[in-house]
Amino acid sequence: MTGKAFQDYYPDDVAHCYGCGRLNAHGYRIKTFWQGDETVTRFRPEAFHTAIPGYVYGGLLASLIDCHGTGTAAAAMYRAEGRGMDSEPSLRFVTGSLHVDFLKPTPQCGELEIRGRVKEVKGRKVIVEATIYAEGVATARGEVVAVQMPESFLRRQDNHPT
Amino acid sequence: MTGKAFQDYYPDDVAHCYGCGRLNAHGYRIKTFWQGDETVTRFRPEAFHTAIPGYVYGGLLASLIDCHGTGTAAAAMYRAEGRGMDSEPSLRFVTGSLHVDFLKPTPQCGELEIRGRVKEVKGRKVIVEATIYAEGVATARGEVVAVQMPESFLRRQDNHPT
Repeated sequence: MTGKAFQDYYPDDVAHCYGCGRLNAHGYRIKTFWQGDETVTRFRPEAFHTAIPGYVYGGLLASLIDCHGTGTAAAAMYRAEGRGMDSEPSLRFVTGSLHVDFLKPTPQCGELEIRGRVKEVKGRKVIVEATIYAEGVATARGEVVAVQMPESFLRRQDNHPT
Repeated sequence: MTGKAFQDYYPDDVAHCYGCGRLNAHGYRIKTFWQGDETVTRFRPEAFHTAIPGYVYGGLLASLIDCHGTGTAAAAMYRAEGRGMDSEPSLRFVTGSLHVDFLKPTPQCGELEIRGRVKEVKGRKVIVEATIYAEGVATARGEVVAVQMPESFLRRQDNHPT
């Protein structure tokens, strides 16, 4: 997938998230794209992201679903408003709740695919369902209730970590 | 808290979890202890474990609840069986499902406290509720449905990452 990802549009002052902030040098820096009505993220875990040997750490899978969800939520809201992600005002979502069902162990076999589907856009809230695939097999499925970030957070630049 | 943590009793071949494995040099290596009928983990996030600037990354909070939950599940099962965590056969739990409600943003203010409570022990399943506190304030609450690891996994040493 080429072109700009959802996360490439996050305003600089809220682009430090460990999961999806392009400005967090230590983080996962996931990249999410539309593919028709679904959203897709591809991510390759490190060897040390292990649960029991040979399988991917569940906390990483939860993190991927979480950040895939907030990214999808923002993209869905721009779509619902009929405008591009490069238009103002910027939208950024945080997680209200996260649920993950671990369907089966996720083998450490290279790149994972996370596919998302927008279940609901209502007011400032977007609900996203996301499924993780390893070698084409669904191994975890989750739901993220994402909430549009209050303006007050966008102004808290005094808390900026260095 | 001193003495051996729950995670110190995990058999070597299943002690590589990124969240709670004492043998994962890259991981969080959380340590969980009984405190009466509750379980307690203390963890200090790194500065780069950020969500929006000034606040802790939600995926890390989900990971802490997850691994606190599986550790508590094992300890609860040993207690239910009336035996110590150093007795055989070893018990190790994996996560069936994880739910996290983010009650409010978690400030990056030093050490977090995760407190767990066993809701149910039934067959091979243990349900644990866990709450994360930052400066004494509950900021996230979750539930882990933990399932006793099948013996077949304990034998999969051929998948051991190096």
